[in-house]
Amino acid sequence: MKEFPEQSTIIDVHSKDWKIIELFRKKPGGIISGEELGGALDISRTAVWKHIRTLQEIGYQIEALPSQGYRLLNSPDILIAEEISSGLVTGTIGRKILCFKNTDSTNRIAFKLGEQGAEEGTVVIAEEQSRGKGRLGRQWESPSGVNLYCSIILRPPLMPVKAPQCTFLSAVAVSQTIETTTTLIPRIKWPNDVLVNGMKVSGMLNEMSAEMEKINFIILGIGVNINMRREQFPPQLRHPASSLFLESGKPVNRIEFTRALLTCFDSLYESYLRKGIGPIREQWLSRSALTGRRIRVSFQESEAVGIVVGLDDDGALLIQGDGGKIEKILAGDVSIVE
Amino acid sequence: MKEFPEQSTIIDVHSKDWKIIELFRKKPGGIISGEELGGALDISRTAVWKHIRTLQEIGYQIEALPSQGYRLLNSPDILIAEEISSGLVTGTIGRKILCFKNTDSTNRIAFKLGEQGAEEGTVVIAEEQSRGKGRLGRQWESPSGVNLYCSIILRPPLMPVKAPQCTFLSAVAVSQTIETTTTLIPRIKWPNDVLVNGMKVSGMLNEMSAEMEKINFIILGIGVNINMRREQFPPQLRHPASSLFLESGKPVNRIEFTRALLTCFDSLYESYLRKGIGPIREQWLSRSALTGRRIRVSFQESEAVGIVVGLDDDGALLIQGDGGKIEKILAGDVSIVE
Repeated sequence: MKEFPEQSTIIDVHSKDWKIIELFRKKPGGIISGEELGGALDISRTAVWKHIRTLQEIGYQIEALPSQGYRLLNSPDILIAEEISSGLVTGTIGRKILCFKNTDSTNRIAFKLGEQGAEEGTVVIAEEQSRGKGRLGRQWESPSGVNLYCSIILRPPLMPVKAPQCTFLSAVAVSQTIETTTTLIPRIKWPNDVLVNGMKVSGMLNEMSAEMEKINFIILGIGVNINMRREQFPPQLRHPASSLFLESGKPVNRIEFTRALLTCFDSLYESYLRKGIGPIREQWLSRSALTGRRIRVSFQESEAVGIVVGLDDDGALLIQGDGGKIEKILAGDVSIVE
Repeated sequence: MKEFPEQSTIIDVHSKDWKIIELFRKKPGGIISGEELGGALDISRTAVWKHIRTLQEIGYQIEALPSQGYRLLNSPDILIAEEISSGLVTGTIGRKILCFKNTDSTNRIAFKLGEQGAEEGTVVIAEEQSRGKGRLGRQWESPSGVNLYCSIILRPPLMPVKAPQCTFLSAVAVSQTIETTTTLIPRIKWPNDVLVNGMKVSGMLNEMSAEMEKINFIILGIGVNINMRREQFPPQLRHPASSLFLESGKPVNRIEFTRALLTCFDSLYESYLRKGIGPIREQWLSRSALTGRRIRVSFQESEAVGIVVGLDDDGALLIQGDGGKIEKILAGDVSIVE
């Protein structure tokens, strides 16, 4: 798990550094002497000072009080694996979390890790992506320090034909997370957008490596515009886009959001493996922005118009054309016909 | 296209070396003087000698006749890209051919090349595989110098759900090639075995990298037991296996076989892209070893028994159970029930 492209920087917190943070957290607002820290970590007071310096460099605000000790004033707004793992109770998802300061694309890193045999539930997160990927070769705008860009490695014991079902899991997990961390009401737009007030706040890019009869692994890429500001959106976007911050007026703690997302996802994935897609589809349909609406779907040169009546097992959108015939839509861009 | 694992050795024939072979081929049995060769290649007679040495090291038998020149006596029984390309007339398949003396798995190399953007129709061939892969993580016996192990990179503009159709193309291409290069009668056993006299002579391993709505690339791995001898088969095999040589009693020229296979495949692929799976399926069904037979299919813990009645668009085998119900079989191992 060591082979990363040169342009990627991993955020690596030493276990003793993290132990110091944990000690501070147990004494909220409190001061811990260098001697006490040294004793707890079995290191010298000089070594304690070095660890404090490292933590300060990562972004932890730690005050040194002469002849008293140290005090943690503030934690940085950075997606750090240890912060996300802290208090995370999941069965599969997030057993291993890798956080990057920057990378080209978390999906690309995750795909590489998948090929190297990374365990199911491994999560790759980046503060910034230089080449964030959207569906069908499109770009995903990925400014630093404000959003969530993460990729989850799954190894479901399923046929490749079932892989598109995983898109439903991501969209439902993101929606549930928005519901629990904000007061916003998310809506899902097939195939894989999550909207708030009609504006796109999240998109997914799912990829897989498979034999004809067996999924090797699936990479679920999830991008969520969390605290992105208006000026950080490019002037021309395919769909009207926004962020949770812009829609709610309140910044969202990204570490808490990520922890909540992994927790939701873990429970949905466990349900999916035990009970199949049924319960997930119900969750999906209850949030669908399209059900009952008349839509136009364009894909390459073709186009279809009809009223959305459901979602098929293989992930296809079911629309009823003017003649009453039900059509299966497997790919394309959707717009609502007024 | 330079990044190969350390354990792989590419067979690299210099363009001037190959020019010399072409000059010899135009003068069958004839002698060419060092001066003439030097003139044609615009190099010195000493340089000619060095190129002749390189060719001899590759395995070309070239005789040096004092004060007369050189004569090509024999070409090696090695899969060399230039030999396969020579006289190959295809549209897409084999536009680029990479031949390895040895590698772990041609599918793995091809997958890597696919990720690096290798063009459609790129073919990876190896004389020997140290970790030849069969379906579902099984091993594919790959001794050196007697068989064909090749992987073809395709980039069809299709949904991933159509990918299993490519299995039909491989099986039909291998069957047609056996028909044109030997007197044997091949039969196809679903999903992807080619049999001669009831013995397996060829198997396929198809893999893909895909988004949910788009195939990035497909790797079609094809193994054909061409000149393998009885003692080269391991004592215990899942299916009774043989080679074209063992079944026909005659060795098969591997270069000609490979060229014929790429030609068949090219024409089937072109037909597939233009007309869909229909014509390929007819070809497949006309060679099916199972149609009308009563079979048992086992997959993981489940089992199905029925009479084979057809092949579905998604690659599923259609069997009719005792109750008359048609069942779709998407994966598994088949045995014929007597």
